[in-house]
Amino acid sequence: MDLFTVMRRQEVAILLKKEFSKWQQEQEWVSIEEALGRVLAADLVSEENIPPFRRSTVDGYALRAADTTGCSDSLPAFLQMLGETRMGEGTDLVVQAEQAVYVPTGGIVPVGADAVCMIEYTENFQDEISIQRPMSQLENLIEVGDDVSIGECVLQKGSRIETQHIGAIAALGRNRVLVKKRIKIAILSTGDELVGPGHPLKLGQIRDSNTDALRAMVISLGCEVVMADRILDQFDALQSGLQKAVDESDLVLISGGSSVGTLDMTPDIINSLGEPGILVHGVAIKPGKPTMVAKVQNKAVFGLPGHPASCLIAYKAIVEPFIQETLLAESIREFPLTAVADFQIHVSSGRDVFYMVQIQENEGQWIAKPVHGKSGMVSLLSKADGYIEIPMEKEGVQRGEKISVHRF
Amino acid sequence: MDLFTVMRRQEVAILLKKEFSKWQQEQEWVSIEEALGRVLAADLVSEENIPPFRRSTVDGYALRAADTTGCSDSLPAFLQMLGETRMGEGTDLVVQAEQAVYVPTGGIVPVGADAVCMIEYTENFQDEISIQRPMSQLENLIEVGDDVSIGECVLQKGSRIETQHIGAIAALGRNRVLVKKRIKIAILSTGDELVGPGHPLKLGQIRDSNTDALRAMVISLGCEVVMADRILDQFDALQSGLQKAVDESDLVLISGGSSVGTLDMTPDIINSLGEPGILVHGVAIKPGKPTMVAKVQNKAVFGLPGHPASCLIAYKAIVEPFIQETLLAESIREFPLTAVADFQIHVSSGRDVFYMVQIQENEGQWIAKPVHGKSGMVSLLSKADGYIEIPMEKEGVQRGEKISVHRF
Repeated sequence: MDLFTVMRRQEVAILLKKEFSKWQQEQEWVSIEEALGRVLAADLVSEENIPPFRRSTVDGYALRAADTTGCSDSLPAFLQMLGETRMGEGTDLVVQAEQAVYVPTGGIVPVGADAVCMIEYTENFQDEISIQRPMSQLENLIEVGDDVSIGECVLQKGSRIETQHIGAIAALGRNRVLVKKRIKIAILSTGDELVGPGHPLKLGQIRDSNTDALRAMVISLGCEVVMADRILDQFDALQSGLQKAVDESDLVLISGGSSVGTLDMTPDIINSLGEPGILVHGVAIKPGKPTMVAKVQNKAVFGLPGHPASCLIAYKAIVEPFIQETLLAESIREFPLTAVADFQIHVSSGRDVFYMVQIQENEGQWIAKPVHGKSGMVSLLSKADGYIEIPMEKEGVQRGEKISVHRF
Repeated sequence: MDLFTVMRRQEVAILLKKEFSKWQQEQEWVSIEEALGRVLAADLVSEENIPPFRRSTVDGYALRAADTTGCSDSLPAFLQMLGETRMGEGTDLVVQAEQAVYVPTGGIVPVGADAVCMIEYTENFQDEISIQRPMSQLENLIEVGDDVSIGECVLQKGSRIETQHIGAIAALGRNRVLVKKRIKIAILSTGDELVGPGHPLKLGQIRDSNTDALRAMVISLGCEVVMADRILDQFDALQSGLQKAVDESDLVLISGGSSVGTLDMTPDIINSLGEPGILVHGVAIKPGKPTMVAKVQNKAVFGLPGHPASCLIAYKAIVEPFIQETLLAESIREFPLTAVADFQIHVSSGRDVFYMVQIQENEGQWIAKPVHGKSGMVSLLSKADGYIEIPMEKEGVQRGEKISVHRF
């Protein structure tokens, strides 16, 4: 019994990319304090040379390398002490032949000098400095723009700003960056039996965990949740909830209501909201097959399965790549973990199978173990460190095989 | 010239653990919306059975498996249709021999039934149902507490709440969790030459990027920045800044001012603030050697090198593990990436060497390439995907060797 025309997730991604090819996420300036996790809307191009002047990398004496040729402990070179430069200040000093200027680490190296001798290899005799090591040109100094020069692109448009990038942005002198606006998400959970956390359960009722799980997922991706409602499986409630969600957000996530059951009205309601309506009803993933993908009023609408583990996998397999790659045009730098399978499974479902795993270390290798849980809800989610994908072309996983583990 | 007594970072960690052995981070309740990234202050123990009632995993007929023995397409079993259960509602129905009750997916399985036959293998004749497959006991149903039972610990005290855990917390019916309070951090950058981003640079001045870099690092760890100031290298400014920082925070990060230079007063000022003062001056890491560790007024104070890459490595090597393991008693689940070294380096510095790398994929393997950057600032930070650690016992890294890459 297959009421859906099932599509592969790669085909869904291509279809969505085409449907939303004209999507241009709006931009905004944010302060450097708020930039973490945001996606750059423009190349980050340096307007300054770094360093902005020739800097010493040591505490020592700026000099001309040629003056130190052949010198040693027993036969030091003697240079005239011209003065010193101080941190945070410019200098008018010019180093001529057989002259030296004291420079602190990070200080400016005066014009004329082409090397800095570490203080450890010198001796200070009032007006004269003895140098006990021969220096080579450019030793212990950094040239102007050596790190970054004016006009150089430091981080490309579409990069997600990670913790290590914040220092780079500050070093460029930027206290704000142009980023893509946060994607606005509406989350609807449908089902007469659903009760949110914090409320008592009556017999027959079950907990809605998808609203909170999806909120955490999209927020960790840098999105903004503009609406999160639980809705009864009634035509009017669903229709007005969906209409409001489409009006107020860029992307709507509905969980539950998309399996083929007696109370299922979601597809008809979505189609009634505008063209082209439902694009995909059924994705060849396991779990997560009854996933719906729609476009109405130029907004993306995803119908996710009600089962928490299925909902999570459908979100990770379909929604997250769409937000990152299509809406934000993000250049993703994700690195799944390579682990050794400590289990054997045979699959032949004609779908890409997602399987949650725990990770352990053994003799310097990562070992992936299955997360057991018959119903695949709380026990799965609380124990899983990540998940693997077994493409439908593969028949399963052999024990000892190397597999890629995606983190949540 | 070694003015410091250098300590290994593992020794520093042990010393800090001892000094702060009585530290008990305060606790607070936070709503499930605010729980992401926080650290559990108590075991998360279930107060409910999940599922709370026997649930069907399919749309079908709840029945007694014994009534279907030997039945088939051509020889179906006929059962009396007793009624149906509805989503979100309890039921008084009791299934007796040769009776069946319709149950939707997720619906309650009535007392008396011990299996659910999928609707696909049935036919409905008004008051009778024909069953075309023999069922085994417990087929297509989930028992009460099968996922989680009352009293079961779902997430342990000290766990960081990750995205996939939020659904589990909601499924337990919790709309708030008891977590450790955020660690309060004060960040001071010292140096007369420092100018923050957004302000023009004069000759000789350099950008302070450490304040923003450290802010991003501690915030991504779940800490709270209560103070972030740039301070001149002047005794009075440093002393009053440090006193305020110690008063207002749990942990102080000072960057710059800790190398052995003419303007270095930080150690004396720290010692003047209270006992025991400086514990460590110099850690056997490269970069990051001139790191200081102190304890005053029962607060931790870290003096980090001013060089941005050194500052970052010292933070990651010394401060971050201290916050996680000692102050928060966090059970850390981090999984460095295993990569193949696409470089060869020889080190013999007598220190644990940290080395930034980029990660690329090649034939299903992660390849770590060196991040080139003479001065190790912006270019390093903007290109690096992570870093490796070469312990002082090792002489370097061979090309083709498997190495562990830590993400930032």
